[in-house]
Amino acid sequence: MPAFADRLAGAVRGKGNPLCVGLDPRWESLPRALRERFGSHTLDDVAAAFEAFSLRILDLVAERVPVVKPQSAFYEACGPAGMAALRRVIRRAKELGLIVILDSKRGDIASTAAAYADAAFAGPLIEGKRRPVWDADAITVNPYLGRDAVEPFVAGAREAGRGVFVLVRTSNPGAGLFQDLESGGRKVYQHVAAAVAEWNRAGIGACGLGDVGAVVGATHPAELAELRAALPNCWFLVPGYGTQGGTARDVAGAFRADGLGAVVNSSRGITFPFHPDDPNWEPAVASATERAIRDLAAIQQGV
Amino acid sequence: MPAFADRLAGAVRGKGNPLCVGLDPRWESLPRALRERFGSHTLDDVAAAFEAFSLRILDLVAERVPVVKPQSAFYEACGPAGMAALRRVIRRAKELGLIVILDSKRGDIASTAAAYADAAFAGPLIEGKRRPVWDADAITVNPYLGRDAVEPFVAGAREAGRGVFVLVRTSNPGAGLFQDLESGGRKVYQHVAAAVAEWNRAGIGACGLGDVGAVVGATHPAELAELRAALPNCWFLVPGYGTQGGTARDVAGAFRADGLGAVVNSSRGITFPFHPDDPNWEPAVASATERAIRDLAAIQQGV
Repeated sequence: MPAFADRLAGAVRGKGNPLCVGLDPRWESLPRALRERFGSHTLDDVAAAFEAFSLRILDLVAERVPVVKPQSAFYEACGPAGMAALRRVIRRAKELGLIVILDSKRGDIASTAAAYADAAFAGPLIEGKRRPVWDADAITVNPYLGRDAVEPFVAGAREAGRGVFVLVRTSNPGAGLFQDLESGGRKVYQHVAAAVAEWNRAGIGACGLGDVGAVVGATHPAELAELRAALPNCWFLVPGYGTQGGTARDVAGAFRADGLGAVVNSSRGITFPFHPDDPNWEPAVASATERAIRDLAAIQQGV
Repeated sequence: MPAFADRLAGAVRGKGNPLCVGLDPRWESLPRALRERFGSHTLDDVAAAFEAFSLRILDLVAERVPVVKPQSAFYEACGPAGMAALRRVIRRAKELGLIVILDSKRGDIASTAAAYADAAFAGPLIEGKRRPVWDADAITVNPYLGRDAVEPFVAGAREAGRGVFVLVRTSNPGAGLFQDLESGGRKVYQHVAAAVAEWNRAGIGACGLGDVGAVVGATHPAELAELRAALPNCWFLVPGYGTQGGTARDVAGAFRADGLGAVVNSSRGITFPFHPDDPNWEPAVASATERAIRDLAAIQQGV
């Protein structure tokens, strides 16, 4: 299997756009017809509805976009059945040729981080045999616990040809509370960025980008451009585009001169552009996908 | 249900010690007899072995210790079946009167954090009804994403009479990479501690401690004492005692003058003090528990 960075570059080039569709299933937002089909007698029913909805979204977007990003929290909120649904959604996305970034923002100390990394990528090693669990192409990782918390993810990813996206500057309004603290002339997120650059160094592929990327919110355009300059070899995962307020213009700075270097995520804007009572919701998803692709293409021409 | 802080105080007083037993099941460390009983044909078999082992540990320690801390990562590494096992382990621990801290170090932005908090505590609200998932007494939370990432956990905990432990200063060797950066005369972890004090303020119970605590590693005795002074009303969860190198003397500073204020976690030291080939492993677990209790009692008399 080619290195993660090159597979991601191939997917983005192949589809001709950098759009990542976030899968964040929420019960109240699901089409009413689908909710009624599965019911909500138990969390297993809810998980089944989340799975059916996610699989339908995959079918609707797979020919047009390179990447999907399931958000663990919403599947986990349905308990074990939700996790089983997540697993099948990831498997189907990969069958459709999509790159799958599992957005679970894990982080823990050494051996525990290794257990999370095993689950995310090749699977835990039991009696000499790998047993795949999520089998994702990449995972998002929280850096607060420091070096020995991130490195097991990097090692696990590298061994299996997968990738890691480390939270650097997140898209939420309260992100600055700790990320923006200044230390030695640099903010905390810039210190994290420097560590990401170092972790990424040994995993740079033919495309010039590596297997340890950065999560940088679309809601911080100046910081996106600054980080693009500081991390010329890192893939960026850019959340916050669309419903969270980031525009195509805001994310322009995330791209390299050749138009590669970032995937831009939209979740609700793509997957819930309809009223739940609208039985004809699928065309709305397809249209929202096309609009986002055009929107991002226009700005990429300018970079 | 009484507030979390008071329930925890009652449990620690009732058992007369502050020991928290960490449940970190690892396949290679399990008693060989148990591994052979379940086999490892699939991850479901591994999950069943993890569950059987965890339940046996609960039976062995429940009469003696106040708190257990299952580590999500090891159950998640067995996929959905592991998560189902985790759920049953938590349920059984609560039936045995133990306080359950789910160690999953979650953290995400607003609505996603709320989904994690729902799963951890009262359960997601579906069609007007709460559907419990993990139903833990408390969860560990990663603060890197900032204010709006932590507050949904605090709100969810407070509404359900549960607690939150925010990572402040972790026990791993590489923890200082970001946690020790200095900003405005205070280290990053001290800034996090100040936010924890603020979040905790509205949830202080009759025992004088609140529902938003701090995770502070046993491997940093000076910082433990300093944080105890800075956070007089916060419960501390202290990992790193035992196998990770922290001693009873190291954790002494975590306690208030009345001996309350901290729970001290030991995982491998309590649950894996035996050779996997030893068929008579259960007495070793019971003895390790008694040793840790005596060890901590001796130091608490001095505080």
